[in-house]
Amino acid sequence: MDKGAIFLLEIGLILLFANIGGYISKKFDQPAVLGQIIVGLIIGPAVFNVIKATVFINHMAEIGVILLMFIAGLETDLEDLKASGQSSLIIAVGGVLFPAAFGILAVFLAKSGSTFQEQLFVGVILTATSVSITVQALRELKKLRSKQGMAILGAAIIDDVVGIILLTLVVSTVNPSEGTSIFLVILKIISFFAIALLFGFGFSRVITKYSDVMRREGRLLTSALIFCFFMAFIAEEMGVAAIIGAYITGVIFSTTPHRNRVSHEIQKIAYSLFTPIFFVNIGLKVTFEGIGDSIMLSIAVILAAIFGKIIGCLLGAKISKFNFRESLQISIGMIPRAEVALIVTSLGLKLKVIGHDIFTSIILLVLVSTIITPILLKMAYKEKKLGSDNIA
Amino acid sequence: MDKGAIFLLEIGLILLFANIGGYISKKFDQPAVLGQIIVGLIIGPAVFNVIKATVFINHMAEIGVILLMFIAGLETDLEDLKASGQSSLIIAVGGVLFPAAFGILAVFLAKSGSTFQEQLFVGVILTATSVSITVQALRELKKLRSKQGMAILGAAIIDDVVGIILLTLVVSTVNPSEGTSIFLVILKIISFFAIALLFGFGFSRVITKYSDVMRREGRLLTSALIFCFFMAFIAEEMGVAAIIGAYITGVIFSTTPHRNRVSHEIQKIAYSLFTPIFFVNIGLKVTFEGIGDSIMLSIAVILAAIFGKIIGCLLGAKISKFNFRESLQISIGMIPRAEVALIVTSLGLKLKVIGHDIFTSIILLVLVSTIITPILLKMAYKEKKLGSDNIA
Repeated sequence: MDKGAIFLLEIGLILLFANIGGYISKKFDQPAVLGQIIVGLIIGPAVFNVIKATVFINHMAEIGVILLMFIAGLETDLEDLKASGQSSLIIAVGGVLFPAAFGILAVFLAKSGSTFQEQLFVGVILTATSVSITVQALRELKKLRSKQGMAILGAAIIDDVVGIILLTLVVSTVNPSEGTSIFLVILKIISFFAIALLFGFGFSRVITKYSDVMRREGRLLTSALIFCFFMAFIAEEMGVAAIIGAYITGVIFSTTPHRNRVSHEIQKIAYSLFTPIFFVNIGLKVTFEGIGDSIMLSIAVILAAIFGKIIGCLLGAKISKFNFRESLQISIGMIPRAEVALIVTSLGLKLKVIGHDIFTSIILLVLVSTIITPILLKMAYKEKKLGSDNIA
Repeated sequence: MDKGAIFLLEIGLILLFANIGGYISKKFDQPAVLGQIIVGLIIGPAVFNVIKATVFINHMAEIGVILLMFIAGLETDLEDLKASGQSSLIIAVGGVLFPAAFGILAVFLAKSGSTFQEQLFVGVILTATSVSITVQALRELKKLRSKQGMAILGAAIIDDVVGIILLTLVVSTVNPSEGTSIFLVILKIISFFAIALLFGFGFSRVITKYSDVMRREGRLLTSALIFCFFMAFIAEEMGVAAIIGAYITGVIFSTTPHRNRVSHEIQKIAYSLFTPIFFVNIGLKVTFEGIGDSIMLSIAVILAAIFGKIIGCLLGAKISKFNFRESLQISIGMIPRAEVALIVTSLGLKLKVIGHDIFTSIILLVLVSTIITPILLKMAYKEKKLGSDNIA
């Protein structure tokens, strides 16, 4: 036992405020996740500075988003995901091209003296959707398992992978010594999916076979957690994001007879402790330092990011034969930017390709996009009362 | 999301090995907790050095022991605890006096040139039982809620408090500037129990009153966690151990109508993730550095610690009208020394009252006492097949 139990106070406070934020959010007929992010903003360095994100809190938060994506995987029907494969691909392509183009244009117009490399880098930053906020908002609306939900999940995985490849390309042009070979990156990504599928479905068979033993010994939940943590780690190491590893683990588990039980128990763990920390932590990471100096740039970047995704994904979804309302729901679901954008931004700062004003703009983008998405999603699903799309 | 997901691999490995260790332990008809501690020893710096205890792992482990004590509290019947109050007090007194006296004697005999202060300090180190290992072993034997289980829990709380008071006395004689006033310490301890009782039973009433709302909103588990973390923090800050705060929170929750449900759900969280980390972490903290130089001293200290508790508590239990077998079970349950002993030892090193050889001896004591307790407890409960004491 370490001296100093301050981390217990911090977690206790985060959980308390997360619940208060979620409660108020629901009173205003908004998803709880919105209140949790705003609460993080309020208790964090941006406003009252009561709690700072420590390494421990960051790790707890990361477990939170990993469990969230694991649950999303468990709730995914593999057949549905396969069926939505082609539309997901088209939506992802639209959702990569438009934000990248708009991002390049935004920096070109709003930041005088910006280099083409800087413009290009911002284009890459804007490509990858952080699907966790959408997943949670859709779950609260009970729409995660709808056709649109599947299309969003599929497209978010694809745009993450495309984003990583684009990033590798851009970094290797900026700084050949820092950049790894593009072929190596693609090879690693392909290997990851191959490993995940082979290993995963082997594991799935073993679990199905020893089903009764595991249930009797009460080892089911622990096995799920162990497997989920390992796959998230491997995914991260192979250059794919940890959350994609967790999602795929969930999809694999969804093919075992334990799907419902594991989902139920992981949800208890996740929602009572870890995921509130993740959402509050998004708010905790926001600071408004230097915001005054780059307000026009920030607005340009935010608009590029949001309308890039809306236009690109709307077009992609329309091409994939979704109706207008459904296409709008999908494109809104693709708006959020968070972890991936922040990681790429940090890399850009480290390589000195982008300025600190870009960093500030991206922080604001994370804040704005994660706050408006739950609100817009709720609106996009609300108006039509007699929904024909209530598959979930 | 931080770069570097190595902590996911570490937790995954700890959970995997904990399950393997527990499984093997059970195959040999021993409590799982024994296998978990030994596994920690094997994968830790003592043997293969695969995993080191990081701050994150330490915090997860501490949450593990806090949840364990919270569960023990939930499973305590307040009436039973009250009923065992007097016997607990007598057992605790025996379990403080004998180990302290034996400890002083052991250092006097086995370490030439030791000062009286050093002898006294070791006496204090040996007083406080770390009840978590016993709690877990008794739970596995389904004996936690027996008369003996209650006596052990009560006595462990009392000897912790007595240990803190003794420590304060000894430190103030050693180093007046470091030592706080003994009256202040006692005042803080009394205040803590007063706060816990007042605040706790107020909270208990609120929860009982809004019972249906909380159950409907699914906030019960989160409220339990928040309350448990806060009380553990307050306990630690007031100079009582965090685990005592958690235990008392559990006792308070056990008086609400949610007792069974909260217990069930907390157990899922604790046993699938946190408590295995706690027990493995005990093993992770062991190193065998410098062990050769102080082997005689170590043996003397370990014997003093173990026989001190067995004789002292056996006498105390006999006086309290337990029969011999029950008294033996109680006294074995009081053997383990872990966190509290380590914390006091670190303080002694910092104050330069004890030598590094004492530190090594205490590390070995932690290891030996935590390993033999589950084995001895199992034996003490095993022989008699037609148990009249099967209350649990």
